[in-house]
Amino acid sequence: MNQKWIVANYPTGPVQTDDLTYTSSLLPPLAENMIRVRTIYLSIDPTNRVWLLKKDTYLPSIELGDVMRGVCIGKVEESNHSHYKPGDLVQGMWGWQTYHISNGDDLIPLPILPALPLTAHFGLLGHVGISAWYGMLEIGKPSAGETVVISAASGAVGSLAGQIAKMQGARVVGIAGSEEKCRRITQDLHFDSAINYTKESVAESLKKHCPNGIDVYFDNVGGQLLDTVLESINDFGRIVACGMISMYNYPNQGITFTNLGNLVMRRVLLKGFICLDHWEYAEQVYTDLIKWHQQGKLHYQVDVVHGLENAPSALQMLFDGANKGKLMIKVSEENE
Amino acid sequence: MNQKWIVANYPTGPVQTDDLTYTSSLLPPLAENMIRVRTIYLSIDPTNRVWLLKKDTYLPSIELGDVMRGVCIGKVEESNHSHYKPGDLVQGMWGWQTYHISNGDDLIPLPILPALPLTAHFGLLGHVGISAWYGMLEIGKPSAGETVVISAASGAVGSLAGQIAKMQGARVVGIAGSEEKCRRITQDLHFDSAINYTKESVAESLKKHCPNGIDVYFDNVGGQLLDTVLESINDFGRIVACGMISMYNYPNQGITFTNLGNLVMRRVLLKGFICLDHWEYAEQVYTDLIKWHQQGKLHYQVDVVHGLENAPSALQMLFDGANKGKLMIKVSEENE
Repeated sequence: MNQKWIVANYPTGPVQTDDLTYTSSLLPPLAENMIRVRTIYLSIDPTNRVWLLKKDTYLPSIELGDVMRGVCIGKVEESNHSHYKPGDLVQGMWGWQTYHISNGDDLIPLPILPALPLTAHFGLLGHVGISAWYGMLEIGKPSAGETVVISAASGAVGSLAGQIAKMQGARVVGIAGSEEKCRRITQDLHFDSAINYTKESVAESLKKHCPNGIDVYFDNVGGQLLDTVLESINDFGRIVACGMISMYNYPNQGITFTNLGNLVMRRVLLKGFICLDHWEYAEQVYTDLIKWHQQGKLHYQVDVVHGLENAPSALQMLFDGANKGKLMIKVSEENE
Repeated sequence: MNQKWIVANYPTGPVQTDDLTYTSSLLPPLAENMIRVRTIYLSIDPTNRVWLLKKDTYLPSIELGDVMRGVCIGKVEESNHSHYKPGDLVQGMWGWQTYHISNGDDLIPLPILPALPLTAHFGLLGHVGISAWYGMLEIGKPSAGETVVISAASGAVGSLAGQIAKMQGARVVGIAGSEEKCRRITQDLHFDSAINYTKESVAESLKKHCPNGIDVYFDNVGGQLLDTVLESINDFGRIVACGMISMYNYPNQGITFTNLGNLVMRRVLLKGFICLDHWEYAEQVYTDLIKWHQQGKLHYQVDVVHGLENAPSALQMLFDGANKGKLMIKVSEENE
């Protein structure tokens, strides 16, 4: 039996119970050249909500009745394909289901990481790692002494991006949504300061913590905060537009800018990017991230929710700020 | 006597009669190593209004009581400086006055352009030419077949930028504020189409004239139009943030965006720039622009208002869209 989540409706706000339907189907006998993969981990990401929009975005809209899209790690259970054998670990976007039947074209063999658990492929590497590395080093490009501000700074991407900026010698200020998250990024991850947006005026705290202005803004949330940061952006500042989670439930909500003119006056570069476009960096990124992690300079945290049946409520955790570290579903045991 | 316009107040909206004061002072005898320059042309630019803000922008705010800042062309009348002799043509930012006493540090000798009138230094070259060339070729970078949209398309910078994009093989759509301007850019400058924003829904017309979306937006106006363009921006689109004239009279006016998410989803690059930062391109830019002009591929138009006393009303023409081509004041005759 293949358990799966089917898209029943396109939500128009936060995902509701009847937008996704949990169902199952019989797995057919495996045909020639095909591979059966058992899902071990399913990544839960803010962009999952983007994929539930009725309109195409950077990926096509999911058809109603189709399995919900998601990034997965799995193990080959049975293979009629010459390149894959039972026990091989693979990654792919086969979505919110316990099994995947593939011809191999949509599978990426996972590199063997002797010193790291399987969850590192979501917490440190993969789309999260590439987003943090590429966004910070190829767009943000902080120099020693520059000031970097990161929103959703305790999140999967933000926490890596901030530590990478620290390694460049930058002063790093994180914005997060609880005292616990703020403590984590300053005490455990050595950010220079943290702003709790639920308790402080971000505009005032940015002025306090960024006395020399903001050179790089690594933005994971979008929305009104982008305008607030624009007020303090420096000449030749860079804005890394990595994500806009604050807007994903209401993508056409109006956001009012009063500091738009600074884009010209301060010669700002703003660059949106999607990690899928930059997978050619993976080898270099993995080498760097694993090395930094082993040197104790790059920490990551995972938040593992058990059971595919909990995927929709886990997705909502991201929007409530309830997760602690990279969120994923453990769909089955690595070794069954 | 030196006639000049003094900044009396920082305007909080359109420049009012009492914000600038026309006055005069006696020119002292010329000291050792000093140069006296007679102003011939004064450039009138949207950014003049930015310079009248109370706060610093990319240049310091003008002190109340100081001469209004402006880009000028002039002729050396008397010189005690070994590098300058009477009759030399120079450019500089000595502002809205009929004479300038300089030690030479703030003067740029004008290159000799045998086939071009002096006004070409404002209409084709100088800050206008560098803005159009740099913005389109170094930020916008349109490829053959791509669609380029230009706001204030009949203006000094926009009209050059559009013609430069045409030379790259792009499809060019201009947005302008009158039927006459639209006719000029399509008939005289061979833009592919024009949108009269005073008569049409720009959003609808953009969809009609850009059936394949927008790859490059060369923005001279900012404001709500930027959001409208974002609706139709293509994947990997580039936004050249050259100016935001629609916002200069009310720089803190809120602009509501409903298409902000496309910055990420469509991996947009937005880059603000100021031509003063790119003067090192001048030689290359001048070579290109003069060559293209001589080949008949790059036209420019100047709108010359006579008399320094008319400078404030000329500045207002820019905001009313009343000028036709690059606006400047003829302060004195080239050969007196």
